[in-house]
Amino acid sequence: MRNETETETETETGSGSGSKKFPEADAAQPPDGFVHECSVRVRYADVDQMGVAYHAHYLRWFEVGRSEMFRSLGLPYREVEQRGVLMPVSEVFCKFVSGARYDEQLTIETRLDPAVRGGMKFDYRIFAGDRKQLVARGYTRHAFVDAGGKVVRPPAFLTEVLATAKTRKEAVG
Amino acid sequence: MRNETETETETETGSGSGSKKFPEADAAQPPDGFVHECSVRVRYADVDQMGVAYHAHYLRWFEVGRSEMFRSLGLPYREVEQRGVLMPVSEVFCKFVSGARYDEQLTIETRLDPAVRGGMKFDYRIFAGDRKQLVARGYTRHAFVDAGGKVVRPPAFLTEVLATAKTRKEAVG
Amino acid sequence: MRNETETETETETGSGSGSKKFPEADAAQPPDGFVHECSVRVRYADVDQMGVAYHAHYLRWFEVGRSEMFRSLGLPYREVEQRGVLMPVSEVFCKFVSGARYDEQLTIETRLDPAVRGGMKFDYRIFAGDRKQLVARGYTRHAFVDAGGKVVRPPAFLTEVLATAKTRKEAVG
Amino acid sequence: MRNETETETETETGSGSGSKKFPEADAAQPPDGFVHECSVRVRYADVDQMGVAYHAHYLRWFEVGRSEMFRSLGLPYREVEQRGVLMPVSEVFCKFVSGARYDEQLTIETRLDPAVRGGMKFDYRIFAGDRKQLVARGYTRHAFVDAGGKVVRPPAFLTEVLATAKTRKEAVG
Repeated sequence: MRNETETETETETGSGSGSKKFPEADAAQPPDGFVHECSVRVRYADVDQMGVAYHAHYLRWFEVGRSEMFRSLGLPYREVEQRGVLMPVSEVFCKFVSGARYDEQLTIETRLDPAVRGGMKFDYRIFAGDRKQLVARGYTRHAFVDAGGKVVRPPAFLTEVLATAKTRKEAVG
Repeated sequence: MRNETETETETETGSGSGSKKFPEADAAQPPDGFVHECSVRVRYADVDQMGVAYHAHYLRWFEVGRSEMFRSLGLPYREVEQRGVLMPVSEVFCKFVSGARYDEQLTIETRLDPAVRGGMKFDYRIFAGDRKQLVARGYTRHAFVDAGGKVVRPPAFLTEVLATAKTRKEAVG
Repeated sequence: MRNETETETETETGSGSGSKKFPEADAAQPPDGFVHECSVRVRYADVDQMGVAYHAHYLRWFEVGRSEMFRSLGLPYREVEQRGVLMPVSEVFCKFVSGARYDEQLTIETRLDPAVRGGMKFDYRIFAGDRKQLVARGYTRHAFVDAGGKVVRPPAFLTEVLATAKTRKEAVG
Repeated sequence: MRNETETETETETGSGSGSKKFPEADAAQPPDGFVHECSVRVRYADVDQMGVAYHAHYLRWFEVGRSEMFRSLGLPYREVEQRGVLMPVSEVFCKFVSGARYDEQLTIETRLDPAVRGGMKFDYRIFAGDRKQLVARGYTRHAFVDAGGKVVRPPAFLTEVLATAKTRKEAVG
C-alpha cells in the first residue's frame, strides 16, 4: 500500500500542513512511520566563512522539522509542554553530505520512527535544490520528563494523536 | 495618497511577496518609503530561561525582514553580493517592548528609510498576536563596500530598483 | 583622582577579576563609573561569509562583559535572579567600527553608567589587536522586574554592592 | 605507561595550554591519543526555557575544544586554513547526559582519535561541577578539503605536528 498523498507543504511559518513519504528509492528508510515536510531558508546568520551553513544550525532546522510535524498532527509541541511533559533532546546525530549555501531554500523531511517506544526518535533529511540534493541527514532522540526532570511514560494524549496519525495515513493510502 | 494594497504576505520561507504601509496611527513613522511585511515563528532555540526570546535573536529577524524586502523587489540580496557589493551592518538599535514567547508567530515590518543616501537604513517593527502587540522596534544602518572592504557609492543596479519600487507604489495607491 | 590599578584580566572563563578605566584619551567616556575588562575569542560559529563576526554575536559579547562585571563585584548575575530580580535587556545599540576576524582575541570593556537610576545601563567597547583597534561600541539598558514581569525598584542588595564598588575604587585611586 | 601531567588548563580565551588523559575509570576511552582540556561558561544566550543549555550550543563547545587543542599543539586552526586546507565537520554525534545550567563552568575534554587516518575524528566529554558531573559526550568527524571543496590527503604540516604531540606525551609519561 502506498501513500500517494502529497498535500500542502508546511512552511517554517506554519501556514498549512502536509505529510509525505520519503522516496521509495531510499531503502534505508522503513516504509512506515509518519513523515512530514517543511522548508526553511538559509540566512546570513547561518553561514560561516567557508560559505556554507555552520553545522550547529542544522540542529535548529531539525527542531523546525519536528515542531512543524507536531503542529500538523494537531498537537503543537507548545501544548505538550503546557500539559506538563517536556521532551528534551537526549541524543543527536547528523551527517553533513553537502554544504547549504546562503539564501538556499531547504526542504526538511521529518519522519517519526515507529519502532521507538519509551521516548521518541525523529529521522531527518535536509535537501537543497528543489529536493534534488541531499544536504544532511540525521536523527534526534527525546525522553519524556516532567517539570521536575523525572523521566515519565509516554503521555496518553500524545500516543493517541500518533495512533490517529497512522490510521489517517492508512485510510488515505 | 494612500497605498491600500496589502498583497500576499512574504513568509520567511519566501513564498509570495508583499508590501504594506505601517498603520497610520503610528505618527512616529513617516508616510513614505517602501514597506514590507513577513513573518517568522519563535523557536525553542530562540527562547531563554525567562521564557522569552533572547534579545540577540531579534537581529536575525531584522535580517529576515530586510532580505525578504530585497527579494520582493526582485533583487535578492544574494544577487547584490554576486554583483560585487556587500552591505555590512554598520549600526543597530533595538528597543524591546514586550517579550516574544515560544511558538508565537511574529510579523516583521521592514521599512526602507528614503532619507538615507550614502548607505541604507531599514526601520523594523516586530509584532505578535496577529499584529496587535508590538514586541520590538529598531533599525539597522548599512554601508556599501566592495569585496576589499572599501566603501563605494550606492550601485546603480540597486538605486534603480528602489526608484522603481517607489513608482510602483505610487501607481497602485 | 585617577584609578591606576590594572589588576588581573577577567577572562570569559571567569578566572580572576579586574577593573580598569577607559583610556583617558576617549573624551566621550565620562571619568567615573565602574569599569571592567574581560576577553573572548572569535569562534568559527561567530563568523559569516564576509569573513567577520556576524553582527548579532556582539550582543552575546556584551552579555559576557556585563556578567563578568557582576561577578567581579562579588554578585554573579545568577544570584541576582536567585533573589527574585530579573534584568531583561530593554534596549540595545551597537556601532560596528571594524570587523572582528576568526580566532581574534577581543577585549570587552564594560562600564556601568552611574547616571542611570531606575534600571541599569552598560556601555561597552570591544577591541581587537591587543586593544589597539576599536571593533565596536554600544550599550544595553536593563529594567528590574520580578518573576511575574512587573517592574520593580532597584533592589537594595544590588545598589549596596554598586556603592561599595565605587568606594573601593576611590580607596585604590 | 600513564601520562600524569596535568599542566595549565587551556581556557576558552586561550591563555596557556594543557594536555590531560581521560580518567582511567572510563573504559570506553582508549588509553592513547592526544587529549586536551579547556573550559567555558554557560551564558544566558545558551540556555532555553527548560533552564538548561539548548542542545545545539554543545556543538559550539566542541568547536572550542578542538580549536584550543590545535592551539596547544602550536598550530592554531586559523593557520591550517591559511595554508589552504579546510576541515569541515562531516559528522557529529552528541549524547546529552545531564543539563548544563546558566553560569556553570564547564570542562571540555577533547581527545584526538588516533585510529582515524583519512580525516580527523575528535571525541569530546563535557563536565560540570568541577568535572564531577558528565553533561554530554560526543564526537565530530572532519574531512580535509582544499579551497575548492575537493577532498585532499592529510597535509604533512599537520601530520608532523600530531606525530610530535604523541612523542612529547611519551617523553613525559
